[in-house]
Amino acid sequence: MTARAQIGVTGLAVMGRNLARNFARHGYTVAVHNRSYAKTESLIADHGDEGDFVPSETMADFVASLARPRKVVIMVKAGGPTDAVIDELIPLLDEGDIVIDAGNAHFPDTRRREEALRAHGLHFVGTGVSGGEEGALNGPSIMPGGSRESYEWLGPILEDISAKVDGVPCCTYVGSDGAGHFVKMVHNGIEYADMQLIAEAYDLLKAGLGASAQEIGEIFAEWNKGDLESFLIEITADVLQHVDAETGKAFVDIVLDRAEQKGTGRWTVQNALDLGVPITGIAEATFARALSGSTPQREAGRVLPAVAGEWNVTDRDAFIEDVRLALYSSKVVAYSQGFDQIAAAAEEFGWDIDRGAMARIWRGGCIIRARFLNRITEAYERNPELSLLLADPYFTEAVGNGVAAWRRIVSQAALNGVPTPAFSSSLAYYDGVRAERLPANVIQAQRDFFGAHTYQRVDKAGVFHTEWSGDRTEHEA
Amino acid sequence: MTARAQIGVTGLAVMGRNLARNFARHGYTVAVHNRSYAKTESLIADHGDEGDFVPSETMADFVASLARPRKVVIMVKAGGPTDAVIDELIPLLDEGDIVIDAGNAHFPDTRRREEALRAHGLHFVGTGVSGGEEGALNGPSIMPGGSRESYEWLGPILEDISAKVDGVPCCTYVGSDGAGHFVKMVHNGIEYADMQLIAEAYDLLKAGLGASAQEIGEIFAEWNKGDLESFLIEITADVLQHVDAETGKAFVDIVLDRAEQKGTGRWTVQNALDLGVPITGIAEATFARALSGSTPQREAGRVLPAVAGEWNVTDRDAFIEDVRLALYSSKVVAYSQGFDQIAAAAEEFGWDIDRGAMARIWRGGCIIRARFLNRITEAYERNPELSLLLADPYFTEAVGNGVAAWRRIVSQAALNGVPTPAFSSSLAYYDGVRAERLPANVIQAQRDFFGAHTYQRVDKAGVFHTEWSGDRTEHEA
Repeated sequence: MTARAQIGVTGLAVMGRNLARNFARHGYTVAVHNRSYAKTESLIADHGDEGDFVPSETMADFVASLARPRKVVIMVKAGGPTDAVIDELIPLLDEGDIVIDAGNAHFPDTRRREEALRAHGLHFVGTGVSGGEEGALNGPSIMPGGSRESYEWLGPILEDISAKVDGVPCCTYVGSDGAGHFVKMVHNGIEYADMQLIAEAYDLLKAGLGASAQEIGEIFAEWNKGDLESFLIEITADVLQHVDAETGKAFVDIVLDRAEQKGTGRWTVQNALDLGVPITGIAEATFARALSGSTPQREAGRVLPAVAGEWNVTDRDAFIEDVRLALYSSKVVAYSQGFDQIAAAAEEFGWDIDRGAMARIWRGGCIIRARFLNRITEAYERNPELSLLLADPYFTEAVGNGVAAWRRIVSQAALNGVPTPAFSSSLAYYDGVRAERLPANVIQAQRDFFGAHTYQRVDKAGVFHTEWSGDRTEHEA
Repeated sequence: MTARAQIGVTGLAVMGRNLARNFARHGYTVAVHNRSYAKTESLIADHGDEGDFVPSETMADFVASLARPRKVVIMVKAGGPTDAVIDELIPLLDEGDIVIDAGNAHFPDTRRREEALRAHGLHFVGTGVSGGEEGALNGPSIMPGGSRESYEWLGPILEDISAKVDGVPCCTYVGSDGAGHFVKMVHNGIEYADMQLIAEAYDLLKAGLGASAQEIGEIFAEWNKGDLESFLIEITADVLQHVDAETGKAFVDIVLDRAEQKGTGRWTVQNALDLGVPITGIAEATFARALSGSTPQREAGRVLPAVAGEWNVTDRDAFIEDVRLALYSSKVVAYSQGFDQIAAAAEEFGWDIDRGAMARIWRGGCIIRARFLNRITEAYERNPELSLLLADPYFTEAVGNGVAAWRRIVSQAALNGVPTPAFSSSLAYYDGVRAERLPANVIQAQRDFFGAHTYQRVDKAGVFHTEWSGDRTEHEA
């Protein structure tokens, strides 16, 4: 067998299959392999004419069909299956070969694997791939980590098959070892927040206007022409206007209100807790999904009295505009928090991540693609060290224009009993991060009182403790 | 050496020293040991007259001084130091001996250690001890896990030295392996929420009334005579009224508004994410501490415009009562969420935890001790399977009486720019858990659209997918 394939894909379920087709359609000779050969055969039978595929029945043949340095994309289930494929590959590969994990690995696993493969003289590239089946085939957003050297070989190919926005590929080198999978994880966390915020906006329009799903869909379609233009707003407009064929009712009205999750939102929040970065929007969104699925609690909760006010919207257009501004402002907070987390992780793990470039490669291919991301890229171009996205002049002004509306919406939701955990939490963050003085002084004072945990003073340096159970003198700790 | 000591303590820093003194004061013969003998000597020198201590210089002598089954309390730093002491102890002990880790271990570590020691025929009891130095000496709240058999030996001693409320010990068997440390962790998570809620109430009184720390302290002292009576409210009243000797200013006004943490809040939230239990109050409290310490973000955030309303409190007493009711209601939510988490963990790890008993042993000794806990015990006595604490008739009525006030406060805080993340989030949870219909239907519809993640219907059983990019027919998945 001639070692002529330029890239290989092992694992030909729908994601791997579509990625392989994407490579082939871009003119690459693609080695393909799957644990059961039937899937490989079906790929060739269905799509063999789309390009130059080199199918192999065994892993050894698959590896042998690849030109060196070999580039092997693994697209199997995260966890044990990924480790199994890596273990099978290692003895077949040679120094300098590149193993790419394009699955949804948790970034600590990617760090572990990268270290292990480096010891074998192999490059291991954990890469985020966003955009689902459709993206994998037609151009995803790609977030590769691993060594910079590996990107010299791999980058041009990945950039080639990625989505393009204004001719710019939605793929760039993210950072060493697990940086790619980390950034993909935060992308998903932001996606959770974005979706929850949209759901809350829908709920407010429904409650405040008594609007039908069709009408709310039209409002979202209108919003999609402005600053909120994004894939998620677009599909929300579409989904809201879809009619269930069986009942003739609005589709969303027959969908059970129980949101599921696959874990990346949870990972994002857990990591933010480790890093000490307050990503409250993502956390509330993740917990809102958990609450929606808490059946026994929700059944028991039916007895709780609302004691709520009545909506009294006199100006329909003004109310819609208020909700739009609240949505936009809350969304900026969610992104600001997510980019903060990326910065903190970069510091923690020694990754040199260009946050503006992350926003740029999310503009196409992925779920959170949005016009708005251009503004984020610009913000980090203006100041690559920006410590708070909200404090970039563009966003300060944009959110400043919406704050009054945002306050009205959160206030009315609280009075009228509509749960808006992500809207409310984002506003609380906004007011917290801008506060001259937070009430954390009381918490530190309590902690010193009951646990001798010490405190700092506003008027001089040092760490102090007061003898609360004694004569209440203060001394330096 | 006669093996006559009834219990032993190794690790004689302040917590271990005070626990040993507590045992001795209750008439037990206490073996004491520390890595450096000087600490042991100083304990004997300073407090040898308080009871019957048996000091040992080596671990072997220490173990030899204990009557069988030996009961060894380890009170050293969590993590590596605890493992080191355990490793040293194992070869010195005999089958049936009991090793008690009274430190702040993370419960998965306790589960691992319990399993390891069980293989050696030893009992391992991870136990939560709350109440700080003071509690350790005078009566802490004690939450022991491990085997039920070990509790037969150990329980009477621990109950003896624990705090008592109405003559009832603040100690009971919690559940197998890591259950004790788990419950202690959730206790601390609730403590985070409780402290944040108090801090928000302080901040609201300060903003709404322009009240001084002294005046707010008086309000808290008044509150401590009613339903809110608790250690935390009591010490807050005290701390707020304390005057800094150096400046003559109110003490809290010279304390830096940067709250620190030692990790148990973080663990609690991370575990809740794993279990899928929405503990939003604890999460917001944990993130609020993180935000208070996010110095670069807060410095950058100073530029953000408030665009907020002005407080216009016309009836001082009514406003204070509104804040009190909002605090009480939010507090019930935090406890309801925490007890939910205990129930979910019990299910996950096979622990038979009596939630009413947990509230009972928290009534004294620990940081969250409060009159209010009696109501929780009663709620679980009425219905041990209660799926939502809020839905217990007592709490439904108590919170129902406060909801209107709670709504006013959260609404005003949003309008006037005071960050109340925990108040707001708790109200959003209340409105979420009682909602007939949450907007999670929109999230599931989006997920099906972009990722074929499927959905359920409200009108029939099954799991469905719509062919969004095709002819939009629905089929069962």
